[in-house]
Amino acid sequence: MKGTQIEALSYQAPQTLGDDIFSLAGRLFPICRSITGQGVRTTLRLLQAVVPLKIHEVPTGTQVFDWIIPSEWNIRDAYIKDRSGRRIVDFQKSNLHVVNYSVPVCASMPLAALKPHLHSRPELPNAIPYRTSYYDRQWGFCLSHKQFQSLRDDRYDVVIDSTLENGSLTYGEFFHPGATRDEFLLSAHVCHPSLANDNCSGLALLAILAATLSKTKTRYSYRFVFAPGTIGAIAWLWRNRERAQYIKHGLVVSCVGDAGGPTYKRSRIGNAQIDRVMAHIVRRTGPSSKVVDFFPYGYDERQYCSPGFNLPVGSFCRSQYGTFPEYHTSADNLDLIRSEYLASSFDIIADAINTVENNHDAVLSHQQMCELQLGKWELYDALRQQGTQTDLMTLLWVLNLADGTRSLLDIAERADAPFSKVFSAFQILRSKGLVAGSAVDGST
Amino acid sequence: MKGTQIEALSYQAPQTLGDDIFSLAGRLFPICRSITGQGVRTTLRLLQAVVPLKIHEVPTGTQVFDWIIPSEWNIRDAYIKDRSGRRIVDFQKSNLHVVNYSVPVCASMPLAALKPHLHSRPELPNAIPYRTSYYDRQWGFCLSHKQFQSLRDDRYDVVIDSTLENGSLTYGEFFHPGATRDEFLLSAHVCHPSLANDNCSGLALLAILAATLSKTKTRYSYRFVFAPGTIGAIAWLWRNRERAQYIKHGLVVSCVGDAGGPTYKRSRIGNAQIDRVMAHIVRRTGPSSKVVDFFPYGYDERQYCSPGFNLPVGSFCRSQYGTFPEYHTSADNLDLIRSEYLASSFDIIADAINTVENNHDAVLSHQQMCELQLGKWELYDALRQQGTQTDLMTLLWVLNLADGTRSLLDIAERADAPFSKVFSAFQILRSKGLVAGSAVDGST
Amino acid sequence: MKGTQIEALSYQAPQTLGDDIFSLAGRLFPICRSITGQGVRTTLRLLQAVVPLKIHEVPTGTQVFDWIIPSEWNIRDAYIKDRSGRRIVDFQKSNLHVVNYSVPVCASMPLAALKPHLHSRPELPNAIPYRTSYYDRQWGFCLSHKQFQSLRDDRYDVVIDSTLENGSLTYGEFFHPGATRDEFLLSAHVCHPSLANDNCSGLALLAILAATLSKTKTRYSYRFVFAPGTIGAIAWLWRNRERAQYIKHGLVVSCVGDAGGPTYKRSRIGNAQIDRVMAHIVRRTGPSSKVVDFFPYGYDERQYCSPGFNLPVGSFCRSQYGTFPEYHTSADNLDLIRSEYLASSFDIIADAINTVENNHDAVLSHQQMCELQLGKWELYDALRQQGTQTDLMTLLWVLNLADGTRSLLDIAERADAPFSKVFSAFQILRSKGLVAGSAVDGST
Repeated sequence: MKGTQIEALSYQAPQTLGDDIFSLAGRLFPICRSITGQGVRTTLRLLQAVVPLKIHEVPTGTQVFDWIIPSEWNIRDAYIKDRSGRRIVDFQKSNLHVVNYSVPVCASMPLAALKPHLHSRPELPNAIPYRTSYYDRQWGFCLSHKQFQSLRDDRYDVVIDSTLENGSLTYGEFFHPGATRDEFLLSAHVCHPSLANDNCSGLALLAILAATLSKTKTRYSYRFVFAPGTIGAIAWLWRNRERAQYIKHGLVVSCVGDAGGPTYKRSRIGNAQIDRVMAHIVRRTGPSSKVVDFFPYGYDERQYCSPGFNLPVGSFCRSQYGTFPEYHTSADNLDLIRSEYLASSFDIIADAINTVENNHDAVLSHQQMCELQLGKWELYDALRQQGTQTDLMTLLWVLNLADGTRSLLDIAERADAPFSKVFSAFQILRSKGLVAGSAVDGST
Repeated sequence: MKGTQIEALSYQAPQTLGDDIFSLAGRLFPICRSITGQGVRTTLRLLQAVVPLKIHEVPTGTQVFDWIIPSEWNIRDAYIKDRSGRRIVDFQKSNLHVVNYSVPVCASMPLAALKPHLHSRPELPNAIPYRTSYYDRQWGFCLSHKQFQSLRDDRYDVVIDSTLENGSLTYGEFFHPGATRDEFLLSAHVCHPSLANDNCSGLALLAILAATLSKTKTRYSYRFVFAPGTIGAIAWLWRNRERAQYIKHGLVVSCVGDAGGPTYKRSRIGNAQIDRVMAHIVRRTGPSSKVVDFFPYGYDERQYCSPGFNLPVGSFCRSQYGTFPEYHTSADNLDLIRSEYLASSFDIIADAINTVENNHDAVLSHQQMCELQLGKWELYDALRQQGTQTDLMTLLWVLNLADGTRSLLDIAERADAPFSKVFSAFQILRSKGLVAGSAVDGST
Repeated sequence: MKGTQIEALSYQAPQTLGDDIFSLAGRLFPICRSITGQGVRTTLRLLQAVVPLKIHEVPTGTQVFDWIIPSEWNIRDAYIKDRSGRRIVDFQKSNLHVVNYSVPVCASMPLAALKPHLHSRPELPNAIPYRTSYYDRQWGFCLSHKQFQSLRDDRYDVVIDSTLENGSLTYGEFFHPGATRDEFLLSAHVCHPSLANDNCSGLALLAILAATLSKTKTRYSYRFVFAPGTIGAIAWLWRNRERAQYIKHGLVVSCVGDAGGPTYKRSRIGNAQIDRVMAHIVRRTGPSSKVVDFFPYGYDERQYCSPGFNLPVGSFCRSQYGTFPEYHTSADNLDLIRSEYLASSFDIIADAINTVENNHDAVLSHQQMCELQLGKWELYDALRQQGTQTDLMTLLWVLNLADGTRSLLDIAERADAPFSKVFSAFQILRSKGLVAGSAVDGST
């Protein structure tokens, strides 16, 4: 595959990038998603307006590793009415009000009987918490602690108009073929209802990234998976267990719209190329950036990094899940995410893609003994040219380390320079026939 | 040896543990010990009341590596009398008053002649220093600097009623056979006279630990050595030079009753299993804990870690020898050591024993691909059970790392969790047939 | 080569060492050097008064790797005269006034035409900057910014009486044969005109070091190279490209007379023996010392550490080039350098030489099991002897680590002790037949 050169990945309209992601996240926000059901299908349909996802259905009852695909959950309405007939808790106002995956209920009961089914968080008195009960057949409502405390000792009508029936689990996939069958996996969970950062932000970002990539010639093939958390990723891995070996890099993407971080959580491998690339990029973004080691909790990196797969898949977010106060409450709404942070997250992932695409192994300079006479090769002129994205020091690093044992990424790490600067110096030198490099990762 | 399971090592009466060690240390304190002689025998006899030590005698003149077993030293009395016949320095009041291993003397002399034989420490004016002269035939007295300065220019009667004769060097040994011939060595020096922390504390702790272990079924065999410092350890190594290869872990124990540390000094190997285990345990005890690298000074780790043996034997103490002001003076008395610190030291060593006993190699989960469905296996219930000593995160770490390449200790280090929590999670998972592990270290 | 023992390298008159280096640097200071021409020859002739350098000439036009030896530059006079005939800028007052390697010029011109040829540094208004233009045919003058700003809009006579003609590049070399053909390279650039620290200091120090070494029997052979920066080192490497393989250690020496640092810049290899030795020595000099990793900028380490050579050659200086304000200006004069710093720099390099000379591989004690009885071997006496340069702890380190797998340098690093103390302990032990060691680095 020598000589193939991807164009730098960049969004068609850079100045509206953040707004475009925000706008798509905003369209996804109102939908009531769960691990199965129409909410996921509606969400994937909205994403199909941006990128031609293929929709997959996995039937209820299918065994996937240690798990079984559960019933399909759908909900039309839910409320608690007080004696006056007023809906005091109303699914139509916020789908967070219903414990996700609740069994149907239609009953009248006193507060004492209702209370065990009510969930609030005293430490966040104004927020509706988000709760689920997937594998335990229950029903329940979530409400602000303030409202919970104001409930009178009265009789209430309680209705959850939901169904749990045989059906299927739905996920969406987009595949962008590259020059090789080696894959870069990008995965986002699609099961959370009206939570903006977690994970309308990730879904919108990846859809727009997929659309952008689809217009680009790449060395790697790119696979985008939009699947329900845990069970969806497990189902996808079950169906793709033979193909997983081609995944050379991967990112689980969630919570990419808030002001925190950015944060990169390493794969279980710890020093896979994606770990090195993301650490290199994220650390350079500023003092609030964080690079953390793998731990077996979080989102679908848990599955990709289970010991039998042990894939080079890390996790990218801004504030880390579970660490920001709005996490899993109604305060994770569209006010929490901002176009500028969404655009910055996009740029970081695009930078990682550009890095693995443009990385070259075994970079070799044709003049191994002593330095080049830079003036003779018009390299000072090249560095002075308008638009040059590198500098003398980076050029000297590439030449000094181009001994046939190092990749451009190795050089960028050693020089402590952005990969793009190292690649730009490499391009200048290569254009003059002064260095050569071979593409990495078993290119065919 | 699969399936053998030691009970957790714990003292029969945990609430009196510290007091019991303190009480035994108190009985050892008054005896005048040296590297040879009746003091050591009396000490070992007192320990035999707790645990059935075997007593070994190595005759004077025996060559042990570069050394020769010296004469046996015994002392009945010693004093300095002034002109009025008053004992102004009296061995009966403190055995520290005599330079340990002094040759006999019976003379009358002016202060000027006596002075070269008097030792005090100006920086600790109230304390009697502890001095020895094993390999240089001398005599001398130790006294407080205050007293030294008050001596009048007078004539003194000086008597040391000691003998240096052919005899033997004495050491005690207790062997607890385990399921394998691999050994854990616990060694304390028995040669210091009335010094409480150094080392009545170590002797008492190890005797009570030996008694406790003797009632327990263990995987490893345990060997307790109570021997004079340096020459005793060298004699023991000489006699056991073929058996030393079975020592898989070891600790030299001294100064375990004061308020400092705790301190672990690594073996010369540096990352032996005992080094990893002790570092893991000691560091978790709090901010005053210290883990230091090996250096060729201190107690009998010098011999165990000589290059030809290079045994995995570290050193455990609270304040490190030589670093506390009372060290090697009469201020190292029973006021310096406390029941609570003795109990804490016991617990640390017991924790190390439990760790090496319960460590398993090559821990392997039966579900390598994707996570287990924890609810299905009633693991949430198991974690909620009364008395469970682990938590969800530790359980997830064990499952994620149980890939057949890691021991439980590896997992505890990676998860930064106490070994006992990791072992408890492993036990829950193993009881459900979800993981297996093989015992470590050449079990037969 | 067993048994060869160099005497410790020390200057004949230690008390005048710094003054002697300073005095030689002072004689070198006034000469106008460049990369070619009489200035270099005059300089080398002055050094020949100290040490019998061999002078080499490389003809103009010779291809040396990617470079070609340029024309020889000589200059007799240069000035700018104002309308009154007064020399307002005068090469006779400071050779820094002329851009080094300027083509000849003889013209009269208004200020506007002159200005593009004038160089000053606004941030150092009183200093004349040092500039060169080797590979771009230009002429120019340097002057203080204060003077530059005072120039009136007038007509000026401008003369540079220089020649650029076929000739040769000159370098000097001194070779001190040792017991083996393995070499220690010491290299200093000889091309800078009147700059005291950079590099009259390095030239003077190395000449006096060479003279000192020439009277000493050594294990290594020592090669001193006094060559113009970049092109001179490249020419030397070209001519010696077969011999470079014998260079086992090396230092590029510059800026060794100011108050900063000392600084050691590692070779590209990073952990070559010279890197370990210099880091060990420099770090012990005090808190302002610095050890920095290799980077492909600076002086002739760039050539020695080009990938095709990748020699174990580091760089030693006090303040690092480019980091002190006087760097490359007329403020780098004889006031910037001091005898005491020159002597200290000499001592550091001599210490490095003593270390590689006296290092022994595979140090082995004859008593591997347990410690030696030190008294029996009269080692306490040896340590107490007048002039002993070691101590008990260092002796114990040597014995404990003398297991046949470590060099004396390994032991010094592990013991965190000066190499000289470790070597002294080794000598005591070896004199008693207690340890043995073999010389390092393919001695023949």
